[in-house]
Amino acid sequence: AMDGAPPATGLSAYVAVSQLLGLTLLATTGAWLGRYRGGVGWHSPLQFNVHPLCMVLGMVFLQGDALLVYRVFRNEAKRSVKGLHALLHGLALAIALVGIVAVFESHRTKGIPDMYSLHSWCGMVAFVLYLLQVRAGDPLGGGRDPTAPGDIPVSPQWLLGCGFFLFPGASFSLRARYKPQHVFFGIALFTLSITACLLGITEMLLFNIRDSYSRFVPEGVLANTLGVLLVAFGLVVGYVLTRDDWKRPPLPEELALSMDFKTLMEGESPGGGS
Amino acid sequence: AMDGAPPATGLSAYVAVSQLLGLTLLATTGAWLGRYRGGVGWHSPLQFNVHPLCMVLGMVFLQGDALLVYRVFRNEAKRSVKGLHALLHGLALAIALVGIVAVFESHRTKGIPDMYSLHSWCGMVAFVLYLLQVRAGDPLGGGRDPTAPGDIPVSPQWLLGCGFFLFPGASFSLRARYKPQHVFFGIALFTLSITACLLGITEMLLFNIRDSYSRFVPEGVLANTLGVLLVAFGLVVGYVLTRDDWKRPPLPEELALSMDFKTLMEGESPGGGS
Repeated sequence: AMDGAPPATGLSAYVAVSQLLGLTLLATTGAWLGRYRGGVGWHSPLQFNVHPLCMVLGMVFLQGDALLVYRVFRNEAKRSVKGLHALLHGLALAIALVGIVAVFESHRTKGIPDMYSLHSWCGMVAFVLYLLQVRAGDPLGGGRDPTAPGDIPVSPQWLLGCGFFLFPGASFSLRARYKPQHVFFGIALFTLSITACLLGITEMLLFNIRDSYSRFVPEGVLANTLGVLLVAFGLVVGYVLTRDDWKRPPLPEELALSMDFKTLMEGESPGGGS
Repeated sequence: AMDGAPPATGLSAYVAVSQLLGLTLLATTGAWLGRYRGGVGWHSPLQFNVHPLCMVLGMVFLQGDALLVYRVFRNEAKRSVKGLHALLHGLALAIALVGIVAVFESHRTKGIPDMYSLHSWCGMVAFVLYLLQVRAGDPLGGGRDPTAPGDIPVSPQWLLGCGFFLFPGASFSLRARYKPQHVFFGIALFTLSITACLLGITEMLLFNIRDSYSRFVPEGVLANTLGVLLVAFGLVVGYVLTRDDWKRPPLPEELALSMDFKTLMEGESPGGGS
């Protein structure tokens, strides 16, 4: 176990605010769907409503929390935190998939075409890249854990993921170079997911209350507020993730890696295996 | 003048791609408005169309380029680059203001209420915070330039800006601690500006081609493509800005600052003045 890491002053307050915002997000989505959209159901005309609920829960709240775990548990064993990171991402993807099935089935029932709107384009790009990012991170993230069993070869998903991202950083140490990209794309996809939610809110409002929206009816104000809460959640999570002095203290062999790459390439290789 | 900075391999390629994307953005916006929306005009029913054109040019292309200058001219004198950074931001704000006036005047002429939609909320928050951020950055950013004349006191704008941002990092050296926040909020506001554009595209399409949008009509596909280009521009700019080895090499006194704060507080103060 790690100790002696510098204290992260203020971190817990920001994390608490993020969780409060996250729960408020879910409550606001529930209130909107329950009070103004008739609630949710599966084999019913309310199937569509499963979509916004699942996307906010999966692609925003759980995805955000999956990104936060390395900061929240910054002094715990890296292996356990990686497990939680993967678990939350898996849960987020599963719930998002239910949300996507819901909208496709609802469209089929009502005879509405799929994938024509900017919302659907952004949302689908976010979901597919998120899936690839999570699958890519899975075998590689553990490469620097000294307790992990051996070395894991570069998977086809990783190459595919990289190809998609168009940022193939692959000169010498694939694993060491992949981490910053993984973090950047994690935050970028989280941001794109939030953007897709805002587009979805706008679509729903213009389809349902087009004429009364401009009269500041309660449903419009509530849904706009949900949008603002989504932006606030993204801001707080993004701030916690990018603040330098809240980053997880590097493991000893990661420090060595950043100190001298050349000696490392000639001498012993870190993280065992290969 | 600075030299001896490590080379930023690949940076120019990314910057070139960003500029190509930026110009494509403007061309696509022009094509959409020109071909499908009747073009632009001021004292005419086409006044509304000035809004999307100005917002894409000001809040996205010029704002993005203002953020990029510290990377593009990373080896030039910091003072000149700061001037360019401020100039581009000023130009961006002026053009955005014209775009905002256009939509308010157009609404007044047509009797449409203002500020009811999520697009308007996000866009106005982005614009106002951007204005505060630019005004806040103005007197402070130069604090660490040894060639700058003396020390500049903390302005009311800075305090106002900080209060708005809700992240007052003000324990000992205000100026040194403000920089990371300035960078984070710069990127966050740029992202929010792009999000506001995507919301605006969705609104415009649902108001103008609501019924044919789902039949994949050319206007819908073109406007969706504009949305995707906006996301791509944001991704490339964000990647260039956040990549560690492309950051501007710190000035000597900035290095000293990060090396030992205590000695610095007791000994001589950097950046002259005060």
